[in-house]
Amino acid sequence: MKQFISVNDVPNIDALVQLALAIKANPEDYREVGKGKSLAMMFFNSSLRTRLSTDLAAAKLGMDRAILNVSSDSWGLDFTDGSIMNADKAEHVKEAAPVIGGYADILAIRAFPSLTDREADYNEQLITNFNKYAGVPLLSMESATLHPLQSLTDLVTIRELFPQKKKLKVALRWAPHPRKLPQAVANSFAQWINKADDIDLQIVHPKGFELHPDFSGNATISHEPVDGLANADIVYVKNWSAYEPYGHTVNDKAHWLLDNKALQKAPNAKIMHCLPVRRNVVIADEVLDGPKSAVQQQANNRLWSAMAVLHELLREGK
Amino acid sequence: MKQFISVNDVPNIDALVQLALAIKANPEDYREVGKGKSLAMMFFNSSLRTRLSTDLAAAKLGMDRAILNVSSDSWGLDFTDGSIMNADKAEHVKEAAPVIGGYADILAIRAFPSLTDREADYNEQLITNFNKYAGVPLLSMESATLHPLQSLTDLVTIRELFPQKKKLKVALRWAPHPRKLPQAVANSFAQWINKADDIDLQIVHPKGFELHPDFSGNATISHEPVDGLANADIVYVKNWSAYEPYGHTVNDKAHWLLDNKALQKAPNAKIMHCLPVRRNVVIADEVLDGPKSAVQQQANNRLWSAMAVLHELLREGK
Amino acid sequence: MKQFISVNDVPNIDALVQLALAIKANPEDYREVGKGKSLAMMFFNSSLRTRLSTDLAAAKLGMDRAILNVSSDSWGLDFTDGSIMNADKAEHVKEAAPVIGGYADILAIRAFPSLTDREADYNEQLITNFNKYAGVPLLSMESATLHPLQSLTDLVTIRELFPQKKKLKVALRWAPHPRKLPQAVANSFAQWINKADDIDLQIVHPKGFELHPDFSGNATISHEPVDGLANADIVYVKNWSAYEPYGHTVNDKAHWLLDNKALQKAPNAKIMHCLPVRRNVVIADEVLDGPKSAVQQQANNRLWSAMAVLHELLREGK
Repeated sequence: MKQFISVNDVPNIDALVQLALAIKANPEDYREVGKGKSLAMMFFNSSLRTRLSTDLAAAKLGMDRAILNVSSDSWGLDFTDGSIMNADKAEHVKEAAPVIGGYADILAIRAFPSLTDREADYNEQLITNFNKYAGVPLLSMESATLHPLQSLTDLVTIRELFPQKKKLKVALRWAPHPRKLPQAVANSFAQWINKADDIDLQIVHPKGFELHPDFSGNATISHEPVDGLANADIVYVKNWSAYEPYGHTVNDKAHWLLDNKALQKAPNAKIMHCLPVRRNVVIADEVLDGPKSAVQQQANNRLWSAMAVLHELLREGK
Repeated sequence: MKQFISVNDVPNIDALVQLALAIKANPEDYREVGKGKSLAMMFFNSSLRTRLSTDLAAAKLGMDRAILNVSSDSWGLDFTDGSIMNADKAEHVKEAAPVIGGYADILAIRAFPSLTDREADYNEQLITNFNKYAGVPLLSMESATLHPLQSLTDLVTIRELFPQKKKLKVALRWAPHPRKLPQAVANSFAQWINKADDIDLQIVHPKGFELHPDFSGNATISHEPVDGLANADIVYVKNWSAYEPYGHTVNDKAHWLLDNKALQKAPNAKIMHCLPVRRNVVIADEVLDGPKSAVQQQANNRLWSAMAVLHELLREGK
Repeated sequence: MKQFISVNDVPNIDALVQLALAIKANPEDYREVGKGKSLAMMFFNSSLRTRLSTDLAAAKLGMDRAILNVSSDSWGLDFTDGSIMNADKAEHVKEAAPVIGGYADILAIRAFPSLTDREADYNEQLITNFNKYAGVPLLSMESATLHPLQSLTDLVTIRELFPQKKKLKVALRWAPHPRKLPQAVANSFAQWINKADDIDLQIVHPKGFELHPDFSGNATISHEPVDGLANADIVYVKNWSAYEPYGHTVNDKAHWLLDNKALQKAPNAKIMHCLPVRRNVVIADEVLDGPKSAVQQQANNRLWSAMAVLHELLREGK
């Protein structure tokens, strides 16, 4: 695997899922895989789960890790060809990326969208440029529009939850949130699940929260918060802001809270969420603290999924 | 040892002290103890000594370490059961703690008191909740009311300084400070020293700076800055703000500076302080730079004490 | 080598350069050199290249690393003998330095100049005091007036670029910059290059940007932006602010941009810069993206140079 920016970088999704599960079963077998190799992690945005799980994943493979907390604002990184850098931008990505790539074997980056400039966000300027110039495999720890480490984890968790079932029904279910959030987790989840032949994806959201068709693909769409979940094996709960008008959100959808009543048509569903979750706004306590919840198992799988991805990227390393 | 939040978590204090001294004598013997194990360190407050010593202690045991600089403000961590999280709190401790505990074998936390809400501080809400939900051994790197890593170090240092003396006289001596400080170091020191049968503890402070009786216990109390130190083997200097009114401090006690004159009744005493120390406000140059001072030895023992604690917590690890 | 603060700390410059090149050729041979040893890195100022390269250099030697992001402002570090610390300074260097030195085997520090108080900057108060009290070898990661890790890298790169040439002509060439920058890189480069018998140094800058003679030494000085580069083998481009009036800069020197026209008298020169570089202000795209540029090779050599320095400092470690 040459890079890990989207599902399209993964030659064999099933094999990657199985590798994550194999690592989870016997993590100590992989202790020497990354010995003498290094991971540089650049955080343009804050992170808890992703940071800790990726950092310790690299450690468990024996890798050296170095962390840079940067801000595209404070650093003043320039992405424009031919710009005359006499203002606030201190360094061009044409220098920064290969310098960092020259020190580390893998470069991991986390950079959120603006949610104000859709074109810039969906062009993935930052991660695309770093990937172009770094000279080493690039690992996305969530970009403006995608979060493939989360999606791999989600698929790993689904395979754990339903190891034998033939045809799965998965609902990606919008939920309310007081802030406007990126579409990255939802886009990426849809993109990954759409690749699985044995999973039917239904996306359930209020009108106005359609994902871009590049990601929703052939998924069926429902605007019914309860009926849209009928017979789901998995209900994947997540808020996202609108693609059009970009970044728009609403505050009159409290009834989209995912509680036990909302699950009446999906009595056997397992509930997933990428966390952090606003309790009793996004998902009710009764669900999170009950037997349907798989959110901790899912969060824990971040570790093994990151190890699997690093494992595959190391094969392409310097 | 299942956790390290207070002296009450230590099954055998003397054994832990002796382990720290054994590690100090031959640190390289412990290089493999934590191999393949990981420590996640969460700093809700800034730290220099504790951070560096705990981090390198884990490294010297062969552990992987990951550090999270967080702020309970910026993170917006919710500790309340049943809360509807539609305001500024982004994550509930019920999710955060087990997620982090799922990645690491030991979770270390540093979180200071507010010094404004005594009930909340003395309830130790943050560390208690993380301990309840983390699922792995929790290590306090200073909580709202206690600092057990410091106290263990203090006891290790006392045993080094007086390896054979039968009955020791230790004075915990208040000193002035321009800012209001937590009671944690003083509470914890008293709590630990009170457990030692062979040490008499005298607490010396101006009226109004009484520690809570849960910590001062049976120690004798003196309000005499000089006479209160009579015949002390150890003078442990520290400022703390008042328990009642909570967080109150005073600026008319410059004569409580610990200088050579203040030590006239304790001519053979060794001087300890947890650092950082305000020179010539808390302790005079003549004491800190003279032969009585043990503050560097004490600070250095943080490393070996942290190794001993991690060593014991690893036995309870996943 | 007992410390690495300036070129004067290096017993044998050529041997150190050769060690860096030997490490670059076979880095895996040095994997165990620092095993069980630790590096504490203190950043009083932000850093990308230096931080990442020094951190991973230590890792590649098998060292444990701990990083402290501090600010002399926020920490309130006191450097004055006998001061009564009742104001904003929380800790004296007499405590801080030996405490940190007590935990780590090598202490690395980065601290920029004020550019307002020349005497304080050129006295190198911070790094001098840490060196005095730390008790372990001190490694400068750029101080107020010098940047020896950069200069070693520069020399390593020059030796790589011209392995056999007998007498080299190197031009240190001032270039414009919108902000006022330290003199550290220029001072240090001149100091190192002046030590090499087989290199002639010419310093090329507008009037008013003279370096202090302690650093420029016997280098020839030119004020001609183009003619001053005649027949140069290396053109080392860098902005610096004035020594007198201290920190002064100008905004009418756009014609000092280093472009191909500026290199007409040095047709075979290799171009170096420590990075970050303002494209089309300091150096033109046509130069940076052309075959003359050695800036990436130079940046990459930071890693091997840091390994060489740590290698030598470890011999003096505890």
